[in-house]
Amino acid sequence: MNHVTAEQKKEIDEIVNEQALTSRFTSVGLESILYQPIPVLDHGFIRVVDYMGTDQSIVQAARVSYGRGTRKTSEDEALINYLIRHSHTTPFEMAEIKLHVKLPIFVARQWIRHRTANVNEYSARYSILDKEFYLPSHNNIGTQDSTNRQGRGSAVEQAEGEEFVSMLRAASEQAHEFYRRSLNENEEGQPKSNKKRGIARELARIGLPLNYYTQWYWKIDLHNLMGFLRLRSDKHAQLEIRMYADAILEVLEKWVPLTFKAFSEHVLGGARLSATAVAFLRKQLAGQAFQRSDSKLSVREWNELAETFGFRSSSSNSLR
Amino acid sequence: MNHVTAEQKKEIDEIVNEQALTSRFTSVGLESILYQPIPVLDHGFIRVVDYMGTDQSIVQAARVSYGRGTRKTSEDEALINYLIRHSHTTPFEMAEIKLHVKLPIFVARQWIRHRTANVNEYSARYSILDKEFYLPSHNNIGTQDSTNRQGRGSAVEQAEGEEFVSMLRAASEQAHEFYRRSLNENEEGQPKSNKKRGIARELARIGLPLNYYTQWYWKIDLHNLMGFLRLRSDKHAQLEIRMYADAILEVLEKWVPLTFKAFSEHVLGGARLSATAVAFLRKQLAGQAFQRSDSKLSVREWNELAETFGFRSSSSNSLR
Amino acid sequence: MNHVTAEQKKEIDEIVNEQALTSRFTSVGLESILYQPIPVLDHGFIRVVDYMGTDQSIVQAARVSYGRGTRKTSEDEALINYLIRHSHTTPFEMAEIKLHVKLPIFVARQWIRHRTANVNEYSARYSILDKEFYLPSHNNIGTQDSTNRQGRGSAVEQAEGEEFVSMLRAASEQAHEFYRRSLNENEEGQPKSNKKRGIARELARIGLPLNYYTQWYWKIDLHNLMGFLRLRSDKHAQLEIRMYADAILEVLEKWVPLTFKAFSEHVLGGARLSATAVAFLRKQLAGQAFQRSDSKLSVREWNELAETFGFRSSSSNSLR
Amino acid sequence: MNHVTAEQKKEIDEIVNEQALTSRFTSVGLESILYQPIPVLDHGFIRVVDYMGTDQSIVQAARVSYGRGTRKTSEDEALINYLIRHSHTTPFEMAEIKLHVKLPIFVARQWIRHRTANVNEYSARYSILDKEFYLPSHNNIGTQDSTNRQGRGSAVEQAEGEEFVSMLRAASEQAHEFYRRSLNENEEGQPKSNKKRGIARELARIGLPLNYYTQWYWKIDLHNLMGFLRLRSDKHAQLEIRMYADAILEVLEKWVPLTFKAFSEHVLGGARLSATAVAFLRKQLAGQAFQRSDSKLSVREWNELAETFGFRSSSSNSLR
Repeated sequence: MNHVTAEQKKEIDEIVNEQALTSRFTSVGLESILYQPIPVLDHGFIRVVDYMGTDQSIVQAARVSYGRGTRKTSEDEALINYLIRHSHTTPFEMAEIKLHVKLPIFVARQWIRHRTANVNEYSARYSILDKEFYLPSHNNIGTQDSTNRQGRGSAVEQAEGEEFVSMLRAASEQAHEFYRRSLNENEEGQPKSNKKRGIARELARIGLPLNYYTQWYWKIDLHNLMGFLRLRSDKHAQLEIRMYADAILEVLEKWVPLTFKAFSEHVLGGARLSATAVAFLRKQLAGQAFQRSDSKLSVREWNELAETFGFRSSSSNSLR
Repeated sequence: MNHVTAEQKKEIDEIVNEQALTSRFTSVGLESILYQPIPVLDHGFIRVVDYMGTDQSIVQAARVSYGRGTRKTSEDEALINYLIRHSHTTPFEMAEIKLHVKLPIFVARQWIRHRTANVNEYSARYSILDKEFYLPSHNNIGTQDSTNRQGRGSAVEQAEGEEFVSMLRAASEQAHEFYRRSLNENEEGQPKSNKKRGIARELARIGLPLNYYTQWYWKIDLHNLMGFLRLRSDKHAQLEIRMYADAILEVLEKWVPLTFKAFSEHVLGGARLSATAVAFLRKQLAGQAFQRSDSKLSVREWNELAETFGFRSSSSNSLR
Repeated sequence: MNHVTAEQKKEIDEIVNEQALTSRFTSVGLESILYQPIPVLDHGFIRVVDYMGTDQSIVQAARVSYGRGTRKTSEDEALINYLIRHSHTTPFEMAEIKLHVKLPIFVARQWIRHRTANVNEYSARYSILDKEFYLPSHNNIGTQDSTNRQGRGSAVEQAEGEEFVSMLRAASEQAHEFYRRSLNENEEGQPKSNKKRGIARELARIGLPLNYYTQWYWKIDLHNLMGFLRLRSDKHAQLEIRMYADAILEVLEKWVPLTFKAFSEHVLGGARLSATAVAFLRKQLAGQAFQRSDSKLSVREWNELAETFGFRSSSSNSLR
Repeated sequence: MNHVTAEQKKEIDEIVNEQALTSRFTSVGLESILYQPIPVLDHGFIRVVDYMGTDQSIVQAARVSYGRGTRKTSEDEALINYLIRHSHTTPFEMAEIKLHVKLPIFVARQWIRHRTANVNEYSARYSILDKEFYLPSHNNIGTQDSTNRQGRGSAVEQAEGEEFVSMLRAASEQAHEFYRRSLNENEEGQPKSNKKRGIARELARIGLPLNYYTQWYWKIDLHNLMGFLRLRSDKHAQLEIRMYADAILEVLEKWVPLTFKAFSEHVLGGARLSATAVAFLRKQLAGQAFQRSDSKLSVREWNELAETFGFRSSSSNSLR
């Protein structure tokens, strides 16, 4: 895997092997992957660096318990389900996870908009950035979507995609060459020229493009993590951040399987209907309404409803 | 100890004994007191229910490390000291602690003003409150302070204090009698009268006074915990919440000794000076100024400065 | 109205009359009620003290506009509708409102759990609380609900309700008598006895019950306000806080009518369905499923679904 | 001024001229500059788009007032000073300001780390970015600082600086050429080639460098704004963001002159001393200690202390 170096791999192995006894709640699922990088995109990864709590912590907090706070797994499951369904969010804030994430800067800029989290980013004022940049794979290069006006639509012709990637590669390499030259350092950290002093790191990096990788430690509670995942695993999110969200969803399932199940049932797989949509479905179930003209719904909302409930969507284009 | 029941003690012992191996950072100091109630006031306590991270986590995050992120303890200490001194707060957000706290409602109302924390409180809409209320000890009953106009000054006469406590006890007991009667439940949860249906819990409790105990799970990151402790261990904080802050300070020292040391050095034991105070000290060190009239400082600020630096304070009263 | 004194009324009139020209967005609806108390419960109120922005501010921010950011009201309405429907919440954070609220302490304790807001509360350490306490009206006194196990069910007999109110009144009056006596102050602020020094305010108040009124300034952005209203105007919220939420909903309609409309359509009047409920409705619409046994839904969720869509609910009791 | 276009200027003039009467607190100082761009760097600006409150709002909230909450300006000043000095922060959360900011992406990435604020950024997924990028002026191009290891030290030779700027200009122009080509749009928004469909905006932009300008609406309360300004106007902050902080400081003085004064006195111009520094100064004032060896201070802290109080600093290098 080209996502971590041999030296980083060694550091990871060492920390994995230093085990200790704890009386804290422990997640067997997470311990088995602790510190291990899960690859995302061409050079990125997520890895779980620490966590606090398990499904049981949610039950324990909801009951303000003195001990485990739990009787049977089936009761835990019912309670967690109930809490999610009724927006009782505070018990889910009682579990916490910390990830080390390596990600392109343009993804980082979307990610950081989730403010109820803690972040410690690698400083390009203090350290030098590696020559690592993101190149999309050919089959993920789409044109501007005509319906969802902020997204990516169908794939462009292969030639157009290939040209884009090859130009992006050239530009990214050239940018790193310029970066190194400005710093006046070669790959070994030695001065390239004795006639120059080198530009400060905080300045030299401003010519690097947004596809360069950065990395950070990111810590978030389970409630806010689900908020992040709901929005970033959505099909309207940009593909690249969605791939991180998908990787975290797998971590979520390992960490808190009961919460993951309730979250899938009530949030990811559920639906939110407007008052007008509810009124239309009531009429439809009573055999009194059948098509969009009976509903006062916009074309766009009608099409989403039709997709959710499996009836025929309108033929006209939806517009925002 | 009258702070937990025998049944609660049993639940605690059980959870303490369920140990597991973990690769996470583990605090030896905290493991030794995990889940154990530390008494505060007459019926209250704090106890550590869970935690994430140690001093090493701060270093690890500051360095966005792949492994332990550390070389020597002395380097860790220097880095932590540097981070605290320069308000680099994000690495301290990477450690987290969860407490179970039992506290009087009037203390809870001050505590909750620290918003960057997670709280799950025992619900008096759902459950019935125990007959547990706070009575101050005689030597802690002061009169309104004439200088710090929101605080407690010197102790009142013993007779006045005793009268207050005995009346508070009587009122608190009477309030619980009224509560039980409104619920139409006796101590065993059986109806007191068959002619009544009992008032809903959410209503019956509104006649209970502010010295009744409540309890909650409270989770906070290390940076915000230090903010809480700075304000709530201050001599201007109400005595009762200060006693909780003092108990947490002892937990802090066990959990993250290097951070505790830097926090004591730069925050708790340090001083914040105004520009005018700095200017005055400069002159004084240069032998050019000696008394308040040379300084443009208010009487109140002058007195605080005099106390900090050990020179003679002004005789006049300070005013806000 | 007994909610503000004559002197307070005079202060309010004065500030209303001090008008100035501004280039900021101005809400005609809010200006007409600015500073005016809207009564809630027996002594409480809300009043708008300040605000930032209008519906247009949301559009302006969504477009990162240089000017008004808007073309036609119909376009504004469509955009606001779209933003609410797709959880694009940041533009709604760009409008802000500040309320002065007078409310019983037990309501304040529920209210404060919404942490993304700013609060400045009247200090009972610094000032003396008035003799103002909440008494529920007779027809609002219910027994514990057997279905929603944290709420208030059907009304108790009139005699039981009257007894509760009359005892609550007596207890509240007695508590204030004890408070005044502890402070050693009469209603005019003079010492009651020359032999006593009076207990500090921060201590004397701890015997006051939770139905006493407090007051605060509360400032929140429009997005978080809608979160507050969604939860606190819900039928599961305690009646007393719901009455505050209802009063604020009327303010919302005056302030940002387009947002209010979209919020009513997509959130308050809408429905959130689980994956299982969606699957059942799909089948039902296709004529393949008709009763709970076809659905895998819990009794409780089935009953809620039946109520939403107007089909027959199950007869058995729902359990959490 | 090349910071806004003629069309943008026209939109601004229109909105400035639409005035209305309000009973809200109004800041004469801010009204005079409302909506007007204040240039920062070569193409950036800040402009005040909206605000809530004035110095009086702080006093009003601190007193939980019914009216203006104020008697005399001198009393307001004393109260605001007291609140700042004692970290009574909640009244300062009662005033709010909204800025429209145009800033290079690398500055935006530092700015966004202040999470207690609201942000709405121009979307490069939805819209096309202008060809606007930041070039540092020659005299601001420094080498890596040897003391403050994350900052910019003394200026490099003019030739080295000029080379950097000219290469940065070329790279930035080339990046925009690549961007336009990927979008397959010319400056007029027409297809460049009929054989291509154009790459989606969210992808095409990932080759743009970090010195490109973005813009956002940013809203923050006065307390958190002061936190931002304390850190970002500090000499350790990167020069470019410091220039934004300096521009905002001027806005602050216009908006809330009393708060600005207290903030300058107690925070910006003040000093924070460690316990060790306090102990040393005590001894020094008592004539018992004079040099670093008497103090246990690190070289770095000693030098800072010496600079603050005007005594001779140590000659050795400071280390982190």
